[in-house]
Amino acid sequence: MLLRMSTLFLRTLREDPADAEVPSHKLLVRAGYVRRVAPGIYSWLPLGKIVLENVARVVREEMNRIGGQEVLFPALLPRDYYEATGRWTEYGDTLFRLKDRKGADYLLGPTHEEMFTDMVKGEYSSYKDYPVTLYQIQTKYRDEARPRAGILRGREFVMKDSYSFDLDDDGLKHSYEQHREAYIRIFDRLGIDYRICFAMSGAMGGSASEEFLAPCPTGEDTFVACHNCGYAANAEAVTTPAPPAVTAEQPALRVLDTPDTPTIESLVEYVNEHHGLGITAVDTLKNIVVKVRTPGSDKVEVVVVGVPGDREVDFKRLEAALTPGVPEIFEAEDFARHPGLVRGYIGPQVLASLGLTYLVDPRVVDGSAWITGANEPGKHAAHVVAGRDFQPAGTIEAAEIRAGDSCPRCAHPLSIDRGIEIGHIFQLGRKYADAAGLDALGPDGKPIRVTMGSYGVGVSRAVAVLVEQRHDALGVAWPREIAPADVHVVGTGKENQIEVATQIAEELEARGLRVLVDDRPGVSPGVKFKDSELLGMPTVLIVGRGLAQGVVELRDRATGAKEEIPLAEAVERVFAACRA
Amino acid sequence: MLLRMSTLFLRTLREDPADAEVPSHKLLVRAGYVRRVAPGIYSWLPLGKIVLENVARVVREEMNRIGGQEVLFPALLPRDYYEATGRWTEYGDTLFRLKDRKGADYLLGPTHEEMFTDMVKGEYSSYKDYPVTLYQIQTKYRDEARPRAGILRGREFVMKDSYSFDLDDDGLKHSYEQHREAYIRIFDRLGIDYRICFAMSGAMGGSASEEFLAPCPTGEDTFVACHNCGYAANAEAVTTPAPPAVTAEQPALRVLDTPDTPTIESLVEYVNEHHGLGITAVDTLKNIVVKVRTPGSDKVEVVVVGVPGDREVDFKRLEAALTPGVPEIFEAEDFARHPGLVRGYIGPQVLASLGLTYLVDPRVVDGSAWITGANEPGKHAAHVVAGRDFQPAGTIEAAEIRAGDSCPRCAHPLSIDRGIEIGHIFQLGRKYADAAGLDALGPDGKPIRVTMGSYGVGVSRAVAVLVEQRHDALGVAWPREIAPADVHVVGTGKENQIEVATQIAEELEARGLRVLVDDRPGVSPGVKFKDSELLGMPTVLIVGRGLAQGVVELRDRATGAKEEIPLAEAVERVFAACRA
Repeated sequence: MLLRMSTLFLRTLREDPADAEVPSHKLLVRAGYVRRVAPGIYSWLPLGKIVLENVARVVREEMNRIGGQEVLFPALLPRDYYEATGRWTEYGDTLFRLKDRKGADYLLGPTHEEMFTDMVKGEYSSYKDYPVTLYQIQTKYRDEARPRAGILRGREFVMKDSYSFDLDDDGLKHSYEQHREAYIRIFDRLGIDYRICFAMSGAMGGSASEEFLAPCPTGEDTFVACHNCGYAANAEAVTTPAPPAVTAEQPALRVLDTPDTPTIESLVEYVNEHHGLGITAVDTLKNIVVKVRTPGSDKVEVVVVGVPGDREVDFKRLEAALTPGVPEIFEAEDFARHPGLVRGYIGPQVLASLGLTYLVDPRVVDGSAWITGANEPGKHAAHVVAGRDFQPAGTIEAAEIRAGDSCPRCAHPLSIDRGIEIGHIFQLGRKYADAAGLDALGPDGKPIRVTMGSYGVGVSRAVAVLVEQRHDALGVAWPREIAPADVHVVGTGKENQIEVATQIAEELEARGLRVLVDDRPGVSPGVKFKDSELLGMPTVLIVGRGLAQGVVELRDRATGAKEEIPLAEAVERVFAACRA
Repeated sequence: MLLRMSTLFLRTLREDPADAEVPSHKLLVRAGYVRRVAPGIYSWLPLGKIVLENVARVVREEMNRIGGQEVLFPALLPRDYYEATGRWTEYGDTLFRLKDRKGADYLLGPTHEEMFTDMVKGEYSSYKDYPVTLYQIQTKYRDEARPRAGILRGREFVMKDSYSFDLDDDGLKHSYEQHREAYIRIFDRLGIDYRICFAMSGAMGGSASEEFLAPCPTGEDTFVACHNCGYAANAEAVTTPAPPAVTAEQPALRVLDTPDTPTIESLVEYVNEHHGLGITAVDTLKNIVVKVRTPGSDKVEVVVVGVPGDREVDFKRLEAALTPGVPEIFEAEDFARHPGLVRGYIGPQVLASLGLTYLVDPRVVDGSAWITGANEPGKHAAHVVAGRDFQPAGTIEAAEIRAGDSCPRCAHPLSIDRGIEIGHIFQLGRKYADAAGLDALGPDGKPIRVTMGSYGVGVSRAVAVLVEQRHDALGVAWPREIAPADVHVVGTGKENQIEVATQIAEELEARGLRVLVDDRPGVSPGVKFKDSELLGMPTVLIVGRGLAQGVVELRDRATGAKEEIPLAEAVERVFAACRA
């Protein structure tokens, strides 16, 4: 179907929309791909709809290739499914809730774990039925507090979500690997630059998880990346390389008077000035106390975390490290209940005798010596040696990650980059199967609890990410597989240029290319060129003034390369460029 | 992609679902095409999703063929668009309404007139931009009071809605004709048996409208059909053929004492007994008084409607005939205000002197004589002659239509049939353009108010309609274009039948057919045959016991024809059957 601009429902805009901050939002609106209807809610115009379908098609093909079976759930869902897992309330304000005419509670699905689990439970019963992978490409709803950036973070958006169902952990790992490979093929075909980041399972209770992040200066997510070896991870998932243990003999522990030094900064300044030391914060050991609550029980454990004094504890890393335990702040009243813990002057020397768990940063290796609290107000201790003066119960990844930290894989300095999450693969485990009681009847007649993986691709978001990564000052530069058309044939001028352009377009269409032709009469060449740059088809053929000399111009949108070619070769050359 | 039943996410059911009344609901659930999530809300399983997509593809191709351009609107819509046209309130309980986290009002789109109008207004300004036709295939929401019949009448459903935008009535007529032809092609390709029924524009304020109804005993809609000439219409749209005027001299009007005869039945009985007449109800003239309110004004007109006494007034026909006026019941207090109207004994003789409008059924022709009220309690008049004793202001189609009435086109007796609405085409006119102020700037610089057409196809409903029309006691019989697969290759037995069946299936797939293969080990032939009949692929190939003799069986699901064919010819014969 030849796309003719003379009749195409498309009007480009000269000005950026007033509410747009990021390039994809500005350009998708200016180029007439989407239009805003409400905050975070957009309509797709004809060219935008084609782009959206192209992304969906790639996702579908790759999901089918790994044996995924496509289903379609409703978006309007009754409360009871989400009540059973607690998510009706857990989702908070992010969930769109409504009542039907009879007063029954419904929600607009933000994600469909419960539904998929229930569906498999409804159809399958025997171990012979498994494994199975189901997916859907569907409109989802999240009432974001700050919908922003156009379709990059919408309240109504299109997502592919899939779930794998396996009988054992090895099966889950296999399903996860298959998805991982499918996602690599998907994002490669989409032409998105991405990093696969180790991600902690976080609150979802699973065991392995990776995020596909598209590096992008406007991204909302940060991730840690090694530009040497390609390692990438969420801050929560970064591991700290431990230095070798220290075997050198250390001086005996010495208590120092350090009045009024509740902070690391004041401590360093005081001991350097009054005790003649030449230390920095990195030589000190800071001890943070938290309460760790076990969900679903009343158990609360007091845990002390020791990190080098130059680093803050990153609470998200701490949370991830303690999962499924939930850390809570150790309040003044808690200190009152534990007089052995002297606020501001805690040292690990007493923790064993207090019966408290002590976890340390991996840098606190055996034999390393620290300046830390002496467990008396106004006093610190020097030469406090790990393994000699205290015995940690283990290590914990709780210290903040900083740009320049060593890559855990190759020791090169790490960067902190910004990115946009475009995919997430996740070994969910048995959480939803537990909630739904999803069992397979085993060969021995005993039930086997099913284990699940959960996998998402932001389909509409991918459209915006492509624009974020592939644009210049003039407009979009679509990758060929996703572009609304392979080639944009532009006829400019008052002679028969439009006619010839249309003929060429029809020939290219007959050859199997997807073609957009600018056949608008009475529109200046300048406007047509600007539109072709704004719209961003990968190949552009200009049929303009040179036609009288039998010459047309072939342009590559992404590189900007231009070449005059004989009219007679136009079809062949365009075809070759598009099939390259 | 070969569909293998050994891994396909599909479990057929032996029993009809308890809540199912109509065949499509029973069979689509039993055959594993859909699953219920909530009243009127269904999930699509893999084979169902394929069928749904096949219907959508046909609709899309035919909409593209008439130059329709596909867009996609959100389903979650802010209140203000629907406030402007009054539909936020008019929709009543049928509209799903909700609030976002900021308390702003939203709705789930039941239909998108407002959105399309606003979109065109946003992009287009000049008369040169028109005409344009836009469409979408989208999930829609209506909170039906009695969701029933599975996906036949759901609360979440898939619809194609399109809108044409033209500068004048001729343009609208052309767009309408194009849609009419597209719908004929769509329903022909879908293999649905349908009637194009004249429909009144009704409340939507347009001027021409037709419904595509699929005749079906379980249908919720009734329509009037002539089985001789093919005429079909909504009851509201049926016209009554007028008999020739009566020229014979009639006796003079005579007033009869008819005490206690407020009903036609009592009147007929009384005059036959006491006045020696031999009449039936058809000889009497019944006069109904209504108030007709003009929307948007305070004007209320009193209208008297005269119909032959053997017929009731069909209020929906009356409403349609009086559009845009809205008829209301003439209450006791209204009679009190009009003492000239003697309830139960109204005759048209006095209406002119009372200054009231009198509209008659087309059968009340000039010169025809009637027994009707004498405008005194307990009295009727005989030989009341149209054109002599009263002068109607015009005719009105308000009398009920009955099976056996004459076809307005060929005079053959009409039937009243049941059907399901699968499409609607409608010359909407300027209602929404008026509400939105949608004008095109004309060549003379003056604004031209745009006129619109509105066109719908029930995409998910069409799936159910196909099953209603194409099933037998054993299951579904899909038409080829819509079936999940062209052919179902069934391997049964314990030798190498499954292996051979799979080989044949792969060959057929390589030849470009869409193939479902029953490669399940350990499932009995009886179960496999039953499943193939229930699932309903148009062509079935059985690779069973005959394989030892080099014979397989070719079945046609719709006709039930079975034929043993040599194995060596199987691929060719199946291919030929599928491409026939």
